[in-house]
This record gives sequence, structure tokens and C-alpha cells, in this order.
Amino acid sequence: MQFKSLAAAIAMTTAATGLGLATVVDNTANAQETYEWKLVTSWPKNFPGVGQGPERLADLVEKMSDGRLTIKVYGAGQLVPGFEVFGAVSAGTAEMGHSASYYWKGKAPAAQFFAAVPFGMNTTEMNAWLHYGDGIELWNELYDQFGLQVMAAGATGVQMGGWYNKQINSVADLEGLKMRMPGLGGEVMSRMGVAIVNMPGGEIFTSLQSGAIDATDWIGPYNDLAFGLHQAAEYYYYPGWHEPTVMFELIINDEAWSSLPEDLQAIVKTAARDVNQDVIDEYTARNNDALQTLIDEHGVKLRRYPDDVLARAKEISAKVTQELAASSPMAQKIYDSYSAFQDKVVNYHAISEQAYYNARNPEGDTTAAE
Amino acid sequence: MQFKSLAAAIAMTTAATGLGLATVVDNTANAQETYEWKLVTSWPKNFPGVGQGPERLADLVEKMSDGRLTIKVYGAGQLVPGFEVFGAVSAGTAEMGHSASYYWKGKAPAAQFFAAVPFGMNTTEMNAWLHYGDGIELWNELYDQFGLQVMAAGATGVQMGGWYNKQINSVADLEGLKMRMPGLGGEVMSRMGVAIVNMPGGEIFTSLQSGAIDATDWIGPYNDLAFGLHQAAEYYYYPGWHEPTVMFELIINDEAWSSLPEDLQAIVKTAARDVNQDVIDEYTARNNDALQTLIDEHGVKLRRYPDDVLARAKEISAKVTQELAASSPMAQKIYDSYSAFQDKVVNYHAISEQAYYNARNPEGDTTAAE
Repeated sequence: MQFKSLAAAIAMTTAATGLGLATVVDNTANAQETYEWKLVTSWPKNFPGVGQGPERLADLVEKMSDGRLTIKVYGAGQLVPGFEVFGAVSAGTAEMGHSASYYWKGKAPAAQFFAAVPFGMNTTEMNAWLHYGDGIELWNELYDQFGLQVMAAGATGVQMGGWYNKQINSVADLEGLKMRMPGLGGEVMSRMGVAIVNMPGGEIFTSLQSGAIDATDWIGPYNDLAFGLHQAAEYYYYPGWHEPTVMFELIINDEAWSSLPEDLQAIVKTAARDVNQDVIDEYTARNNDALQTLIDEHGVKLRRYPDDVLARAKEISAKVTQELAASSPMAQKIYDSYSAFQDKVVNYHAISEQAYYNARNPEGDTTAAE
Repeated sequence: MQFKSLAAAIAMTTAATGLGLATVVDNTANAQETYEWKLVTSWPKNFPGVGQGPERLADLVEKMSDGRLTIKVYGAGQLVPGFEVFGAVSAGTAEMGHSASYYWKGKAPAAQFFAAVPFGMNTTEMNAWLHYGDGIELWNELYDQFGLQVMAAGATGVQMGGWYNKQINSVADLEGLKMRMPGLGGEVMSRMGVAIVNMPGGEIFTSLQSGAIDATDWIGPYNDLAFGLHQAAEYYYYPGWHEPTVMFELIINDEAWSSLPEDLQAIVKTAARDVNQDVIDEYTARNNDALQTLIDEHGVKLRRYPDDVLARAKEISAKVTQELAASSPMAQKIYDSYSAFQDKVVNYHAISEQAYYNARNPEGDTTAAE
């Protein structure tokens, strides 16, 4: 309800209802109702790149709503552990969460399609599928059973392939390596003879340095440099076929969402879309400087995965993804939509983005040339 | 100013100022002030892709502001001609405009850097430069003299190279062709022997069909199919090295902008960022279906520009862009920022996006195989 002026409001309300000032007070209080929400994340507070997404979201929402909706951001472990974000928001412990859907594969294996698929879609393609394919509807359908709304809220771009303590010249060199690589990519690697070891991010550095593992993936130069992984391994492989992007998610408790008036819902949705672009913009801008520092100052050896590794990984990735699809009717439905969209966009990008990258830079990578 | 309840507001105001109800009325009226704005565009009303951007912007702003800021969108020619958007917003005839900055090269040649640069940055890279480089600050600095704010508000992705009435097998085949290609790309083409003919979009089809021109660029399959260009030429070339993206702009009259309270400014800015991603998402999702229709139903012959054309165009593009930079200190400043950013991002994308596209689809384009 909106009034052009308070005097008019009082006059109208008094005339229409026969009630006095008290009613107007209630109406006005309602229109100006404020909300104080908690947002839990899977990242350390103020983590570079992805950790900036939820901070920006909170800031935008507060400014756009003129303080009617304020959001307090908690780093992993501050309110709930990073891997309990999904459950906490589902239960209403926090109204919002910022995370990545592949962490919830134990609850819903199909959730992995919305984060990263080996040899799957990159950031631009995922965003097109989510917002102009069936992606976001399917994602919400999957999360509905958990009482959650979901929106895309950031992406890494094509990640790096990983850190190795030796050079990889063929598939045979992978045999017997102990590697940290989570999710579908890890499953692909294990079928190429790698022993996959699961561990949280915080244990990676020590494990790699001590030799408990021989290799690890992480994210990309901007995050990896900050993590210090170059101090524990010498070879840095690309491209990250196992994670052609990781999409991040904003999840919102259904009841909390329903309690918001429509304008605040629109504000949250639009802020998420802003953040969705802002995170990839930051990664795109920052990764090269970090890469150069790794190479020039720390002597990191940048290497492309050999052709046979890429070809084999691609072949196995298709199988692993199809097996995931076969795990449930919902997974199959998501896979069908995802893969049909990917087939088309790969076809178009072959003559647009891919053809352009190759026309602009026919020699490809020259960084590693010796 | 915010009050928890109207009663408290009245009590506070009365106590603090000794004034009565009238003061409170003014405050409330001010907080709820509404704005009705006009947005002029360079596109036909509801044009596919780019023309959806301003419609979406208006819708988002109205919803987020709960109707406090409403924006009426005008197609090209409805309020002012499409190529007079810049002047109209600068003069305050309309508060907002949606267009592309290379149309204003007559007023500010350096504006072209913010729309499309031959062999320059693609959409992902432009967004990174704009939002995490100096791009958006430089763009605003350039437009400041015209009394305008500017924000990025959509992009096409890598465009198609253009329509030709014969096959192009080498640079020699370009010699003497009459072609419509505006901007820096047209200048590059003219140095390869093409006679460049300027004309508005509405005249392209007839000119191509009548033989007044032999070739034309336009946008990409989604827009080109709707335009019917396949009925006037048979060969469709890629990639669009002359327009690796076209970025669209939202321009806002400075005085109108200053009149908005901070929350509405934040709402407009965030809506523009949403639109900025939404337009490229739509193009990414729709282009392949249109391409297939062109090939399968209309017999269009898809062809890649020959290597010698791409190599020559790249070489000349660098010269043309440097000449533009030398045209003024501001152009040089923008070029220096643009090209330094591009050098870095091309280097990083060589091992991420480009390397990934090539690993996922090593055979490249297979559409045109016969």
C-alpha cells in the first residue's frame, strides 16, 4: 500500500475504516518492515574471488533496499562448518547460503550438474543454459524437496588442471599417483589409474608437501598463489578439463523467501545476477598476474596435459556423466537438458568464441615455451 | 530517515523541532517520491536480443523500486531517431538511452574502444576490463563532457564475419567488393581493397539483394535470420574478427542521475549489470538454432575466413587501432589501458578458455564439412 502523503493516508484510512491513527501506524510499520538475515558460506571469510561474492551481495541488497534487508555474512566455520551450509539453510538456521552444488552430492547426486561437469559447459555456456535453457528451473526443482530456492551466484571460469610433483608425458605417467581431486573429475582420474584421496582444502598444502599426495587440483592462479601450492609442487597443468567452470550458488530458505515482499525478492534476485557476473569478472582480471608471478618469481613449470591424457579423459568423462544421469529419473532429466544444450552451444561456439580465440592467437600458449 | 513506527516519528519530530504534523508529511512524501523516466534506444521496439535489454531493465527497476521509478522504453524513431540517442540523453530529452558507443565516434572517436575493437577483447574479457580494470572509469571520464553516466548493458558475443555473394578464398578475392561494414572493421576491410559503403540497418537487405553491395556484416545468426539476409546472399563467413563482441551501453543524463536517491541509483546500477549478462545469455542460447535453420532450411553455406585473410586483417587491425589511439590524449589513455589488459587476458585465456575449447572440440567446426 502506498500513499502520496501521510496526511492523505490518515484521511483515507480514517474515512474508509472508521479507525484512527493506530491502524495507520500498523500499515506504515509493515511497509517499512526490516529483515536481518544471516548468510553462511563454504569459504573462509573474505576469501579472494568466490568469497567476495556473498559480501557484494549483502552490500548491494542493503543499498538497494535502503537498509530494509540487511545480510550478515559468515565465513566457513563461523556459524556452521563450510560443508553444512546446505543443511543449515534448509533447516532455517540461516536464511541464505553461498556455496557450490557439488558439495551436496551425498544428498542429491544430480546437484553436481549445476557446479562442474568434466568436458562440460564453461561459464558463458552454463549461464545461457541456466537463464535461457531449462537450467535454473531444473535446479530449483531438484532443491525443492529441501525447502530451498537457488540462484546462480558466481563462477570461476576454466580452472587449472592441477599441481603435480613430476612431469606427465602420457596416461601411463598418471598410473599410481595419489591425487586430491573431488567430484566427477576425481572419478575420471581414478579410471585412468590415479588413487584419489579426499581431503578438505585446508589439508592440501601439508599433504602435498609431505608427499602424502603427489598431485592436487585447486582452482586457478589467483587462488592457488594465495594458497602457496607452488611451494609444494613444481608442475602446473592446464586446461582444467575436470572443471570448465565451477558455478556458485545462492540458496535461500523457502519460508524466509516467502516472507519477503515482492520488491525485496526482486532486489535479492537481481543482486545475485550481479554477483554471478562480478565473480567471474574478478577471476578473469586477476588470474594472469598471479600466473606470471608463479612462473617468473616462483619458477613454476606450466605444462599442457598431453593429447592422449585429454582424449582419454574426455572419453571417460562421457561415461562417468552418463552413469550419474542413470542414477535417478531426476538426474536423467537434468542430464538430458544439459547435454542437449551443450551439443548446440559447442557447435555454435566452434565458429564463434573458439574460432575467434584461434584466429586471434593462432600459436596458442607461448608462456611455457623454453 | 527511518522510523520504527509512525507514532514514534511524529513524537520525535514534534519533540525535536517543535513543528507539528506538516513536517512529517513532507518527509514521508519525499521518501516516497516517484520518478517517471524515458529510455530511448537505437533498436526497433522489442528487437530480438539487444532490444530485450532495455525492456528487462525497465521491468527490473520498476519491481525493485516498487514502482517508485518507472521507465518507458522507446524504440528507434518513436521519440528520437536511433542515431540521436546520445544527443537526446545528453540534452535531457530522455533521462536514459540504450545503444552502442561506436555510433558516437563523430563526437568522441575514442568511444569505439568501448563497443568493438577488431581482434580485440571478447565479452568475458571486456566485462573483466570494465569492472576490474579501468574500463568503466575511463568510459565515464570520456562521457563526462557530455553530461552522461554510462554503464555496460549487454553484449552480442563474437559476431559472424558477414554475408558474401561469392566464396572468398584469399585476400585477393576481397579486392573491389562493395561491402557494408561500419567502424574500425570497415576501415580494416578498406585497406584490404574492399570498397566500404555506409548505410543504416534498414537498407542492407535491399542493397544486398539488388547488387548495390556484394557483402555485408550484421550481427549473428539469431538476428541475421530474422533479418532475412540469407535471401540475399549465399555465403556466411566466420569468425567476426571485426567485432569479437559488441558491448551495449546504458547512458543516463547526469542531472537526472543526481536527482535519484541513493537506493534508486543502486537499483539502476544493479539492474544494468543484470541486463549486461542477460543479453549475452540470450544470444548464446539462441544463435545455434538460428544457424542450423540457416544451413538446413535455407541452404546457407557456412565458411571460415581463409587463414591469409585472418592474418592480414589482424595485422591491419593493430595499425588501425593504434591510429585511433594517436588521435587524442584521451584515446591514447584508453588504448593503453585496453591493450595492456588485453595482452594479459589473452595470455591467460590461451591456457584456460582457448585451451579448453580446443581440448573439448579438437576438430573445431564440423558444420561446414561437405
